[in-house]
Amino acid sequence: MSGPPSEGPGGLPVPAGGAVEDYLRAQATEFLRALRAQRENGPASDEASEAARALRRAARRIAGALHTFGPLLEPSWSDAVRPELAWLSSTLAREHAYTTRLTRLLGALHRLCGGPDPEAAGELPAPAPRSSRARTAVATPSARRAPATAPSATGTLTVGAAKAGALLERQLTLARTRAHSAALGALGSSRFHAVADQIAVLASEVPLNPATASAPSQESLASLATGTATRLMDAVEALPLCRAGHPYNAEALILGGVTPDTAPDGQDAPWHQVGRLLRLHRYAQEVTGPVPGVPRGLAATGLLGAGHALDQHRDAADAAKAAAEAARTPRITPATAYALGVLHADQRHEVEAARFAFQRIWQRGTVTAR
Amino acid sequence: MSGPPSEGPGGLPVPAGGAVEDYLRAQATEFLRALRAQRENGPASDEASEAARALRRAARRIAGALHTFGPLLEPSWSDAVRPELAWLSSTLAREHAYTTRLTRLLGALHRLCGGPDPEAAGELPAPAPRSSRARTAVATPSARRAPATAPSATGTLTVGAAKAGALLERQLTLARTRAHSAALGALGSSRFHAVADQIAVLASEVPLNPATASAPSQESLASLATGTATRLMDAVEALPLCRAGHPYNAEALILGGVTPDTAPDGQDAPWHQVGRLLRLHRYAQEVTGPVPGVPRGLAATGLLGAGHALDQHRDAADAAKAAAEAARTPRITPATAYALGVLHADQRHEVEAARFAFQRIWQRGTVTAR
Repeated sequence: MSGPPSEGPGGLPVPAGGAVEDYLRAQATEFLRALRAQRENGPASDEASEAARALRRAARRIAGALHTFGPLLEPSWSDAVRPELAWLSSTLAREHAYTTRLTRLLGALHRLCGGPDPEAAGELPAPAPRSSRARTAVATPSARRAPATAPSATGTLTVGAAKAGALLERQLTLARTRAHSAALGALGSSRFHAVADQIAVLASEVPLNPATASAPSQESLASLATGTATRLMDAVEALPLCRAGHPYNAEALILGGVTPDTAPDGQDAPWHQVGRLLRLHRYAQEVTGPVPGVPRGLAATGLLGAGHALDQHRDAADAAKAAAEAARTPRITPATAYALGVLHADQRHEVEAARFAFQRIWQRGTVTAR
Repeated sequence: MSGPPSEGPGGLPVPAGGAVEDYLRAQATEFLRALRAQRENGPASDEASEAARALRRAARRIAGALHTFGPLLEPSWSDAVRPELAWLSSTLAREHAYTTRLTRLLGALHRLCGGPDPEAAGELPAPAPRSSRARTAVATPSARRAPATAPSATGTLTVGAAKAGALLERQLTLARTRAHSAALGALGSSRFHAVADQIAVLASEVPLNPATASAPSQESLASLATGTATRLMDAVEALPLCRAGHPYNAEALILGGVTPDTAPDGQDAPWHQVGRLLRLHRYAQEVTGPVPGVPRGLAATGLLGAGHALDQHRDAADAAKAAAEAARTPRITPATAYALGVLHADQRHEVEAARFAFQRIWQRGTVTAR
C-alpha cells in the first residue's frame, strides 16, 4: 500500500482519523463477511476453516490498528474492544497452531530418519484437515486410536522414532481437538456475539476521538506509526543479533535443552516480542505506507521475510517444547525418550537457524538503507 | 619447512632418497628418544603420558613418509613396517581419544545446562589425568563408584543430565582404563619390540630402493608428494562442500540421529578420509616443502586450521556415537535417555559446524590461490 492521500478533494488536508476510519471499516467488513461464511458452512468444512482464518486475520488487523492509532479513536470504546479481539484471535489461532506443530514434528522425525522432508515432498500424509478430525471429536477414543493409524505417517521410521511420532500425534491431536471445540464454543458464546456487534458498528461508523482525529493526516498518522516502528527498532536493538549472526553458536539449546522440565522461554521471549511488534508495524504500514525509522531496505519483501523467520522461530520453539513435554509422559520407554530428546534439540537448532535467518535479512535491510 | 635443497655440495643434484632419508632418520631418533623417556618414567606419570604422545607423533610421521615416499624405499621392508606402525599408533591413541571424548561430552552437558563451558572456564574438573585413573584400574569397582563422585563434575546439572553425565563418565572411564592397560600391554609385547628394533635400524640406516632413490630429488619427491596432494584434492572435491557452506542445513543429524542403533557413519566417512589425507599431505610437506596442486592460500596456517576442523569433526562424531551407545544401556530412566538424545543431537550439530568451518577455510584458501 502506498499510504493515504495527503490531500482530499478540493486540496484540503485529509484528517488523520480518515485514513484509520477507512482501514477499520474495510477490515470490519472483511470480518463480517468471514463470519457469514463461517455460519453458512458446516463447522467442519474446509470453507469454514478458511472463513475462520479470514476472521482471525481481520480481528488481528483491527486490534493492530486500535493499538497503533488508538489516540485517534474514542478511548473507552477502543479500550473495551482490544482485549476482546485479542481473546478471539488467540482462541481461533490455537487449533491451527497444533496442526502446524504436529506437521512440523512429524516432518522433522521423518527427515531425521533419512526420509525426504514430507512437507517438501508431499509424501507423508499431513495430519488430516481439521474437518475429518473434528468428526471424531470425542477426545479419548480418538487419542487411543492414534497409535494404530500412526504407521502410515511414520512408515520408514525406526523403533524409538516411530513411538515418539505416535505419542506426539496422540497428544497434539487431542490438544487440537480440544482447541477446535473451544473455538466452536467461543464462536457460539455471548462474549463473541458482543464482539461481533461491536465490529458491526465499526463497519458503519468508526468511533473517532474528536480531540485528535481531525488533525492533519500525514503528521499525526506518521507520528503514531513511528511510535510502533520505534518500539520495534528498540526491541530489535536489544536482541543478541551479533551472536545470532555467527552460525552454529549453539546458544538456542542452552538451558532447557537437557531436561524436559525447563524451557528456554527466557532467551526466546525477546524474539517473540519482536515478532509481535513486527506484525504491528506491518499492519500500521497498511494504513500509512512506509514509515521512516525502520531499515528502508526492509520496506517490502524484507519485512515479510523477517516476519517469516520469526514465525519459524516461534513454531520451532513451540515444537521443541511439545517434544520436551511429551518426554514427561509417564511410562514411555527410554528409546522413545531418546528420540524425543533428539527431536527437541533438532527443533532448538531450528530456533537458532531462524535467528540466523532473521539477522541476515535485517542486516541486509540496514545496509541497503545506508 | 622450506623443503630439501635442490643442489648438494659441489652443485650435484641431491638424490630424492636423501631428503626422505634425513626425515626418516630424524623421526626415528625422535621415536627412540620418546621410547627411552617412556621407559624411564613410571607408567602412570605425566612424563610417561607426554612420552607416549611423542612416540605416537613420530610413529605417525614415519608411517606417513612410508606411505607417500614408499617407492623410494626398499619395498619389502616398507610393506612390513607400515601396518605395524599403524597398529602401534592406533593402540596408543585410544586412551587419549576416550579422555577427549569424556571431556567433550561432560563439557557439552554442562554448557547445555546453562553453565559456562567448563573447558573454556576451567571450572569443571576435567577427567583426572590417566595417572590417577590408572591407579584405580580395576574396572568394576571404579565404575560403581563413578555415580558417587560424579556430582563434582556435574554440579549444576539437572536430574536427567546429571544421570547421563554419570553414565557417560562411568562407561568412558572404564573404556579408557582398558585402553590404558592395552597400551601398556602393547608397549611390553614382543610385537612392539620388533617394531622398536626396526625403528632403531632406521635411525642409523634407511633401507632405500636403489632403483629409484638416486633419481634427482626435486622431480621425484615432488611427483610423489603431488600424488598424495592429488588424492587429497580429489577427496575434498567429492565432499558436499556446497551444502556444508549453508549454515543450519541440518544434514549431520540425518540418519542415526533418532535411534541409538544406527549411526551416520556413511555421511561421516568421506570427511574422516579427507582428515587422514590432509594429515598425510601435511607430513609430506615436512619433507618436500609446499606442494603444488593444493590451494596455495592454505599452505601454512590454513592447512592446520582445516586439519583442526576435521579433528573436531571426528571428535564430535565419536562423542555423538558414545552418547547414542550410552542410551542403549539397559534399565536407564527415560529422563537419562532424553538427555542423551539431546546430547547426541548437540554433538551432531557440532559435526555440522565443523564441516561448515572446514568449508570456509578451504574456500578461502582456494580463493586466495586464484
